[in-house]
Amino acid sequence: MEMNGRQRWNIEGSEEMNKSSVTVRGSLNQISRYLNSEDDRPVIGFGHADPSGFPSFRTSSAIVEALVDAVRSWKFNSYPSTQGLLPARRALAEYFSKSLPYQLSSDEVFLTAGCLQAIEIIISVLTRPGANILIPRPAFPHYETRAIFGGLEVRNFNLIPQNNWEVDLQAVQALADNNTVAIVIINPNNPCGSVYTSQHLKEIAETARKLGIFVISDEVYAHMVFGKKPFVPMGEFGSIAPVLTLGSLSKKWSVPGWRLGWILTTDPNGILKKHGILESIENYKEIIPPPATCIQGAVPQILAKTSDEFVSSLLDSLKTNADILYEKINEIPCFTCPNKPEGSMLAMVKLNLEQLEGIRDDVEFCSKVAREESVVILPGIAVGLKNWLRFSFGMERCAIEDGVARLESFYQRHKLH
Amino acid sequence: MEMNGRQRWNIEGSEEMNKSSVTVRGSLNQISRYLNSEDDRPVIGFGHADPSGFPSFRTSSAIVEALVDAVRSWKFNSYPSTQGLLPARRALAEYFSKSLPYQLSSDEVFLTAGCLQAIEIIISVLTRPGANILIPRPAFPHYETRAIFGGLEVRNFNLIPQNNWEVDLQAVQALADNNTVAIVIINPNNPCGSVYTSQHLKEIAETARKLGIFVISDEVYAHMVFGKKPFVPMGEFGSIAPVLTLGSLSKKWSVPGWRLGWILTTDPNGILKKHGILESIENYKEIIPPPATCIQGAVPQILAKTSDEFVSSLLDSLKTNADILYEKINEIPCFTCPNKPEGSMLAMVKLNLEQLEGIRDDVEFCSKVAREESVVILPGIAVGLKNWLRFSFGMERCAIEDGVARLESFYQRHKLH
Repeated sequence: MEMNGRQRWNIEGSEEMNKSSVTVRGSLNQISRYLNSEDDRPVIGFGHADPSGFPSFRTSSAIVEALVDAVRSWKFNSYPSTQGLLPARRALAEYFSKSLPYQLSSDEVFLTAGCLQAIEIIISVLTRPGANILIPRPAFPHYETRAIFGGLEVRNFNLIPQNNWEVDLQAVQALADNNTVAIVIINPNNPCGSVYTSQHLKEIAETARKLGIFVISDEVYAHMVFGKKPFVPMGEFGSIAPVLTLGSLSKKWSVPGWRLGWILTTDPNGILKKHGILESIENYKEIIPPPATCIQGAVPQILAKTSDEFVSSLLDSLKTNADILYEKINEIPCFTCPNKPEGSMLAMVKLNLEQLEGIRDDVEFCSKVAREESVVILPGIAVGLKNWLRFSFGMERCAIEDGVARLESFYQRHKLH
Repeated sequence: MEMNGRQRWNIEGSEEMNKSSVTVRGSLNQISRYLNSEDDRPVIGFGHADPSGFPSFRTSSAIVEALVDAVRSWKFNSYPSTQGLLPARRALAEYFSKSLPYQLSSDEVFLTAGCLQAIEIIISVLTRPGANILIPRPAFPHYETRAIFGGLEVRNFNLIPQNNWEVDLQAVQALADNNTVAIVIINPNNPCGSVYTSQHLKEIAETARKLGIFVISDEVYAHMVFGKKPFVPMGEFGSIAPVLTLGSLSKKWSVPGWRLGWILTTDPNGILKKHGILESIENYKEIIPPPATCIQGAVPQILAKTSDEFVSSLLDSLKTNADILYEKINEIPCFTCPNKPEGSMLAMVKLNLEQLEGIRDDVEFCSKVAREESVVILPGIAVGLKNWLRFSFGMERCAIEDGVARLESFYQRHKLH
C-alpha cells in the first residue's frame, strides 16, 4: 500500500517461527558463533551425533552400492505412493520381526523422511484440544519442540542419573491424567547413553497400560549397544500396551543424510488401528514430503547386504570412545559423568560450576570453550538439563583425546583458586 | 485405564487429520477404488502429472549419472546443514539468474524436499492470527490444504477461462484487505495448462504492490511451454513487488521421486529480508526434513549436464499430446476444453452434464469412467472447479488416444437420448 507517499508492505515473518524453538542444530549454531577463526587448531565437535564423515564411522560400500543400483535401475524416479514402496516396507517388517515375539506386516511399517519426520507425524496425529504428552527430561529436544509447535501440552518426567537414567515411573503416574495420550521413551538413550533393561521396559509398558496410553519408543539407536545390557525393543511388550517404534538408517547404517526413517506399529492387539491412529498417520503423510523414491528402493538391498562386521566395527569404535571419554572427563574436577555410556553415541556430563571461576551456566561454559579451545559441546539446557553437557563421542579416538585435553587446559585456566 | 474390568485406551486419531484434506493423491485414490479388476485393459491414468515412468518422459542418463557420482563420492552421507549445500544453492542461483534482470545470490536460494515442502514452508511462515492469502480457483490444491491445516484464511479469486485462464485482477483487489499477506500464482499453470504473458505478470506485480503484499509464484513447470508464448519468470518483476518463486527437479528434469525443490527470493530490493521472511524460512527449515544430502550434492552436475535436446524432446512430446487431447476431447459432446494447453502438462476440460444421462457431477462421472473404462481422471472439484475435469497429458501418445477413445465409448453409452 502507498501511505504518505511511501510504499508500505504488509509483510512480516512469523513471530511463532522466530521464537527460537529448541533444536540441537539451532543450539549448536548459537555456540559455534563463538568459535575463533584465528585459532589454527581443528574444531573438535562434541555436538552433533553424526560421525558419518569420520573414517571409522563411514558407511559401507555395500550400502553405497545398494543406492547406486537403485538409481541405475531407473525404476525409482517417479513419485512414491503415500504408503511408500512395498518391498521396502516388507523388508523392514521382516528385519524387525526377528527381534519381536510376533510377525510385523508391511502395513505396520510407515516410511518417513528420517526420524525427525517420524516425530513430526506422531506428534501431529496426537494433537487435539487439551491433550498432553509425557516426555522425558533430559530428551532429544525435537519431541518437545514439535509438541509446542503443534499445541500439544508437554509434561516432563525425570530420568534418574543415580539409577542409570531410568524413567521415574512414580512421577509418570503422578503427571498423567485423562487427557494424557502417550509417553515417549528413547532407548538406547539420547542424550544419556543408557540402555534400558527388559524389566524396566516391561514396567513402562505396564504403567502405560494402567494409564490407558500408548508408548512412543524412539529406537533410532536400536542395536547400538556396547555395554553389558542387550538391546531389547519396546515392541516386545506391545501386547501390554501399544507401541509406536521410531527408527532410521541414520545411525546403524551411518547414512543420516539419506533421510530414510520409519514408524513401526508394534501392537499385536491392533489397538492403534482400531482407534484410528494408522488412518491418521496415512492422512498426515499425504501432505508431507516422502523419503526419496530411489532411497526407498535401496532399502531391501541395504538391509540384506549390510554385514555384521560393519556394525560390530562401528560398535567397537563407540565402545573405545565411550571408555576414553568416561575415564578422562571424570579426571577433570569441573565434570562428573555419572554413568559410563552403554549405547547410542552420547553421554550426559554434569558441569560442576563451583569448581570454576566466573562462569554462570552451561551456555556460558560452552560459549567460552568454543571461543578459547575450538571445542563445540551442546549445553544441557538444549536437552532440558541446565548445567549439564551433552557429549557425542561418535568421532575418531584421537579427536576425543585432543578435545578432552583442551577441556583440561580450559579447566586449568578457569578453575577456582 | 481399567473400567468395569475392561481395559480402556485413551487413544484416538486426530479428527483434524481424518477430515479428508484435499490432495490430488487422495482424490485419485478415491476414484481408483472404482477400478474394475476384471477389466483386462491397462488403466489409463489422466490423473497424476507424473510422466517420469513413460519411455518418452524418462529422465536422462546424464541426470542419473550425476546422482550416481554424488553417491559414489562418499561426500554426501552426513546430515546437511539447514541452509543446504552451498554448491547446490550457488548452481541454482546462477541457473535462474540467466532469465532474470539481476543476479540471485546463493543466500536467496532455499532447498526443499520437493515443491510440496516449499508450499508448506511458505504457508507456515505466513500464518498469523487473522491473516489471509489469495489463492486462484482453480489451483493445485496443496496451497489451500496447507493454509486450512495451518489456520490461514483462504480467499479465492477466479481464473477466467474465456481469457486464457488469466487472473481476475479486479476480483483480487476486491478480496484483499489489511490482513492479506500474499497472492499465489501458478505459471505455467496447474491445472489449466495456460502460460501468462509478460504484460499480465507485470499487472499482477503492480496489483500486489498496490495491496502491499508479495507474490508466491509457483514455477514448478518453469520453461515447460510449447505454444506461442515464451515462459517469463515472475521474478522479472521482483522490483515491483517481492516474489517468492517455487520450483523443483520434478518436471523439467523428470525426477519427481528425488524430492528436490527450492524457494527463490526474487526480490532485488531486499524487502522480504528486511521484514523477517528469510529468517522465518530458515527457522522453519530447522524443524522439517531437508532433501537428501546426496541429491543436493548432485544438483550442480544435473544443471550443468542436462542437454537442451533432452528438454526439447520432452516439450515436443507434450506439444503433440496437448494437440491430440485438445482436438479429440472437443469432438466428444460432453466435453469442452476452452483453451489449448500451452504449458505444464495439464488441461482443464468442462464436463457438459446436460449431454449425459443420470450423472450428477464430476465425481460421479470420474467414478463411473474408472469402473467402466479403466480410465482415471481427476474431478475438477479437487482443484476447486466443480463439474470440470483435470487431465494430465504427460504419457505416451498412444495412451492418450486409447483413453480418449474409451471416453468416446463411455459417452455413447451414457449420452442423453
